[in-house]
Amino acid sequence: MKRVAVFRKEHFNAAHRLFNPAWDDRKNAEVFGKCSYPNYHGHNYEVVVKVTGTPDPQTGFVMDMKLLSDLIRVHVIEEFDHKNLNLDTPFFREMNPTAENIVMVIYDLLRSRIDPALGLRVRLYETERNFAEYPEE
Amino acid sequence: MKRVAVFRKEHFNAAHRLFNPAWDDRKNAEVFGKCSYPNYHGHNYEVVVKVTGTPDPQTGFVMDMKLLSDLIRVHVIEEFDHKNLNLDTPFFREMNPTAENIVMVIYDLLRSRIDPALGLRVRLYETERNFAEYPEE
Amino acid sequence: MKRVAVFRKEHFNAAHRLFNPAWDDRKNAEVFGKCSYPNYHGHNYEVVVKVTGTPDPQTGFVMDMKLLSDLIRVHVIEEFDHKNLNLDTPFFREMNPTAENIVMVIYDLLRSRIDPALGLRVRLYETERNFAEYPEE
Amino acid sequence: MKRVAVFRKEHFNAAHRLFNPAWDDRKNAEVFGKCSYPNYHGHNYEVVVKVTGTPDPQTGFVMDMKLLSDLIRVHVIEEFDHKNLNLDTPFFREMNPTAENIVMVIYDLLRSRIDPALGLRVRLYETERNFAEYPEE
Amino acid sequence: MKRVAVFRKEHFNAAHRLFNPAWDDRKNAEVFGKCSYPNYHGHNYEVVVKVTGTPDPQTGFVMDMKLLSDLIRVHVIEEFDHKNLNLDTPFFREMNPTAENIVMVIYDLLRSRIDPALGLRVRLYETERNFAEYPEE
Amino acid sequence: MKRVAVFRKEHFNAAHRLFNPAWDDRKNAEVFGKCSYPNYHGHNYEVVVKVTGTPDPQTGFVMDMKLLSDLIRVHVIEEFDHKNLNLDTPFFREMNPTAENIVMVIYDLLRSRIDPALGLRVRLYETERNFAEYPEE
Repeated sequence: MKRVAVFRKEHFNAAHRLFNPAWDDRKNAEVFGKCSYPNYHGHNYEVVVKVTGTPDPQTGFVMDMKLLSDLIRVHVIEEFDHKNLNLDTPFFREMNPTAENIVMVIYDLLRSRIDPALGLRVRLYETERNFAEYPEE
Repeated sequence: MKRVAVFRKEHFNAAHRLFNPAWDDRKNAEVFGKCSYPNYHGHNYEVVVKVTGTPDPQTGFVMDMKLLSDLIRVHVIEEFDHKNLNLDTPFFREMNPTAENIVMVIYDLLRSRIDPALGLRVRLYETERNFAEYPEE
Repeated sequence: MKRVAVFRKEHFNAAHRLFNPAWDDRKNAEVFGKCSYPNYHGHNYEVVVKVTGTPDPQTGFVMDMKLLSDLIRVHVIEEFDHKNLNLDTPFFREMNPTAENIVMVIYDLLRSRIDPALGLRVRLYETERNFAEYPEE
Repeated sequence: MKRVAVFRKEHFNAAHRLFNPAWDDRKNAEVFGKCSYPNYHGHNYEVVVKVTGTPDPQTGFVMDMKLLSDLIRVHVIEEFDHKNLNLDTPFFREMNPTAENIVMVIYDLLRSRIDPALGLRVRLYETERNFAEYPEE
Repeated sequence: MKRVAVFRKEHFNAAHRLFNPAWDDRKNAEVFGKCSYPNYHGHNYEVVVKVTGTPDPQTGFVMDMKLLSDLIRVHVIEEFDHKNLNLDTPFFREMNPTAENIVMVIYDLLRSRIDPALGLRVRLYETERNFAEYPEE
Repeated sequence: MKRVAVFRKEHFNAAHRLFNPAWDDRKNAEVFGKCSYPNYHGHNYEVVVKVTGTPDPQTGFVMDMKLLSDLIRVHVIEEFDHKNLNLDTPFFREMNPTAENIVMVIYDLLRSRIDPALGLRVRLYETERNFAEYPEE
């Protein structure tokens, strides 16, 4: 059975800051630098979702890209777009919204909604120069 | 033996439409949406070919990129560029020209022409936001 | 009064071919090359619309980008997306769908729908390497 | 005297929100949509600064790009990077941080620091699809 | 008569260094920094050529893009590609190969070969972040 | 233990040429074409470094991206930026500076400086269309 990967890219804009509430301001500034400024900064995030499986002989699709795009939009983009990741979402109350943690949250939001026979991997671009991927290859 | 991957990107412009001749127009519209419009639409396709192997100590090349580029141009680009994938190529008479199916066809066109000691993987961008890769990683 | 330009980028995928019905096949092939292949080819077109004017002091907007995006989507993208420019649109029955002609058609579709006090210019990317702009700067 | 333009691109990441304090929440939501969410969102902003003049025959430079880059970094990037544009900068207390207004502020920050014999224009990308330029061409 | 602009992008890879032979090494290092290192460095240059005119009613072309691409390739790319701009071309014996000077040389190479009724402007990217354009807009 | 990949992109500009000193000029020209021109050419190289590991629960980082960026800048960028790879670095005296060989050198420069518990892979773009990765996936 020939397995192919398909990819869909979507994007959202959000504010965040990095800090550990168990640490004082000085330690936070030392570890997180500008990323811990108290009033938040933000990014144009790009999400690339990779789904692997066998193309359906009737359609030639591993997965309908319209359906995949809709899943990402409803469960990821609507959750994060134009939001403050620390304040407006339930995920980063006790966990820093680093690219690493955000990409794992996105993976979990999608994994339960995609056929378990299909493989899933998510890449998140925080900027063109900083990005993260889960699970590791 | 240290194995390295090299990549070469080429592009072609083509028309296509998605539909299953075993289905009526309504079913095709339902499944394929705008992609099944009868008079075709098109894309600027980008092909990225990945070849893995051990660099030759005389040249420092896993494979001569000029040779790889020529192979892709003769066997892929000339076959597909400025063509209608459904009507002008032999590959999509009975198979939908989805990104998944096109990338598998391109892989087959190249696999037999590249040294079997070298690994091969192909990625095809239909748009910047929709792409496919074969074989899956 | 300080005048600022704002830009909005949208995209559509379409098929087309270039040919002059007054010429025979040989002349068409000579002038248009691969672009005259009879069964069409296609592109991922990118449209960049530039609107110039004075920002409204209440909003800070030259023009509401959501409104501009909606205008482009309703009057340009829905007209051209996933279409065959020669067969499915009324504009290229007697005029070749070159980047030059398409960009002038898009300009006309938008000009009448945007406040005459605002300046308008349109750029159309046929590929990353071939594009056109109207009116000339 | 031959005049040439040179361009330098820099970037910063910032949070912002759009709203007019003279309006109630409903009016703000109506006009600014998601951009008025109270806890801010953010962007990876790209700034492109264009300087025009005659190349110095000794250097071949219209302006030393290292010097231009330093000016942008000291007076623009350090002012805005990893900041909340509404709260952490003096410019958007009474003026909405739209792309239009930000690009005019950046122009003013640079204009007084660049030789008046040189032309200046600034483009600001809020996203790849929304951008602004001042002064208009 | 409606005037439209068309653009064609090509690229070349070249080595260069910046220095003024009338100055000593210290002055050169002071003014040109790393760009004056004696053994050269290099860039992937991108050239964007803009031609403006009235589309021919028979073809819909301001200028045949194939012809424009051939002109650029014969007179610019073959002259500069895989060359050392200081040593292997006649243009930079007495003039520094800055982006400003290279773009003016490219303009001159093309201007005499393109119909004088057509407007011409050239942009040269030395990197994604440093570029030049001639003549100024 | 959940393993995530993080990526950091940096760039440098350098000159190089490809040739094998054991071969005569004709053989070098035959094998390396334009890349063997004696006076060097150059590229804008992009380096993408991938580090895999388990995010630290205190920071949410697989590795501090500031630290990773500093490591790449000190040990790779300062070594190669604005240099002639053949003449100015110790690595390519007896080995051709192909993308394959450069990427393996960069890997070695970083591997010893990054925690052995973390995975490492490096991708090097010589141009947008030619790139290499080590170790192969």
